Amino acid sequence: MAEELTEAGGRIRLYVSADLGEGAAVPLADGQAHYLLHVMRAKAGMRLRLFNGRDGEWVAEIATATKRGVSVTALARTAPQDRVPDLWLCFAPVKKTPADYLAQKATELGAARLQPVFTRRTIVTRVNEERLAANAVEAAEQSDRLSVPEIAPPLTLEKLLATWPEGRTLYFCDEGGDARPLAAVARPAPAAILTGPEGGFDPAERELIRSRMFTVPVTLGPRILRADTAALAALAVWQSVAGDWR
Amino acid sequence: MAEELTEAGGRIRLYVSADLGEGAAVPLADGQAHYLLHVMRAKAGMRLRLFNGRDGEWVAEIATATKRGVSVTALARTAPQDRVPDLWLCFAPVKKTPADYLAQKATELGAARLQPVFTRRTIVTRVNEERLAANAVEAAEQSDRLSVPEIAPPLTLEKLLATWPEGRTLYFCDEGGDARPLAAVARPAPAAILTGPEGGFDPAERELIRSRMFTVPVTLGPRILRADTAALAALAVWQSVAGDWR
Repeated sequence: MAEELTEAGGRIRLYVSADLGEGAAVPLADGQAHYLLHVMRAKAGMRLRLFNGRDGEWVAEIATATKRGVSVTALARTAPQDRVPDLWLCFAPVKKTPADYLAQKATELGAARLQPVFTRRTIVTRVNEERLAANAVEAAEQSDRLSVPEIAPPLTLEKLLATWPEGRTLYFCDEGGDARPLAAVARPAPAAILTGPEGGFDPAERELIRSRMFTVPVTLGPRILRADTAALAALAVWQSVAGDWR
Repeated sequence: MAEELTEAGGRIRLYVSADLGEGAAVPLADGQAHYLLHVMRAKAGMRLRLFNGRDGEWVAEIATATKRGVSVTALARTAPQDRVPDLWLCFAPVKKTPADYLAQKATELGAARLQPVFTRRTIVTRVNEERLAANAVEAAEQSDRLSVPEIAPPLTLEKLLATWPEGRTLYFCDEGGDARPLAAVARPAPAAILTGPEGGFDPAERELIRSRMFTVPVTLGPRILRADTAALAALAVWQSVAGDWR
C-alpha cells in the first residue's frame, strides 16, 4: 500500500514548510514552483511526494500549473513521521565544494544537526549557512529522509565546549595515543562527532577538548583521513553501531 | 625517532615505482619532477618522503634540482611496509567528479582494490582507469598510506560473479527485505563490497547476486544513500568492525 502510493507519488519529492494533511493546499517556494514548471514540465494531475519534518510523507497532486503559479494539494499520508538519532556533526568549515558534499552526505547518513566550528587552524572564515541548508534539503529530498538536519550558527571551539549540553557524548576524532576505535566506544544518542580542519587541531585545542568530561577521543584507523572523509566515516560507524542502522 | 625523521621528511610525500634502499638513487616520473621544481620550488638538500608499496616509507633528499631534472636519494626507512586488509570495492562506475571523489576516499579508507562493474542500469559506458589510478595515488600520498589500491579492469556483473575467487565474502549493499546490518555480519578479509549504480540493480541482477553462496546482502540503514555515499559508508563500517580500524 505504502509502496503503491510512493510509486504513485513518482520520483519528485519536495521539502515544504507548510502543514500537511488530507486535502491541504500546500504553498510552494518560488524555486520549487519554477523547478516543477520548467524542469519537470509539471501538469495538473501530476503526483509528487512532500514532507515537512513533522507530518510524515504525503502523496500530493498538482492542482494547477500555469505561469502564474503552481498549486498543490496533499492527498494521503504514505509514511508516519520518524526521527533520526540525536547525533550532531560538529565540523571545522571547509571550502565551498567539500562543504556542499559534506552537507549532502551528512544528511544522507542521518545527522540531526550540522554545527560549524571555528578553530585556530580553520582557513575558511565565513560559513554560508543558506548554502549548507540548500544542500541539506536537496539531500533529504533525494534520500527519502523525512526531516532536514538543523544547520546551527557557527561557534568557536571554546564557545561550543563552554555551552555543551549535559548528557551528550562528544566523540573527538583524534590521532592521539589513547584514542580508541569509534566502533568500540560508540554509545546511543545524544551524541556528537567532532572533526578538525585540514591542519588538525592545535595542541592547546586538543588539550582543551580532551579535558572535558563529555569527550571520548576516538580513532578511525591507521591512515590519515581528510577532514570530510573523517566526518563521513565517523557518522557511518556511529550509525552502524549505536544509531538507526542497527 | 620515526617521528623526527617524518618531520625531517617534511610534507612532500611521493609514490614511486623504483626500489627503495639506503643510498638508492630514485628516478621520478616527469610529472613528479615538474611538481617538485615548479610547484614546491625544490632545491638540493630538501627532504621528502617516498613509498612504493613494497619497501615501507623512506626519507629522501633532493640531490640535484635543475631544469634538466631532479635527482633524489633515499636516506633511511621511517616505517616498515604494511598491508591494508584484503578488501575490494566493486562499484558501478559513476560520472567523472564523483568517480574522482570515490577513488580518493576509498583509498583513504583502505580499500585494497577498486573494481569497476558494469550493470544494466550503469549510465557511464567507459572507465578512465588512468584517472582512477591518478586519484588513488594522490590520496595514498596524502593519507600516509604505504600502498596504492589496485585498479582492476572493468568487468560486467555476470563476469565478476562467474570468476569470483573462493573464500571471499561479497557484501551486497541492497535495500531488500532480508538484508542485515553490515556491522552485524561483517567478517574479516578476504572480503568485498558491492554497490550499484544510481538507479540500483535490476531485479534479475539482484536475484543473480543473491543466488551466489558467497553473497551476504547487507543494509546501510533506513535512508536511501547515493551510490558513492553507500560505497564509502560500507568501507568505513567494514573497516571499523572487521578491518584494521579495530
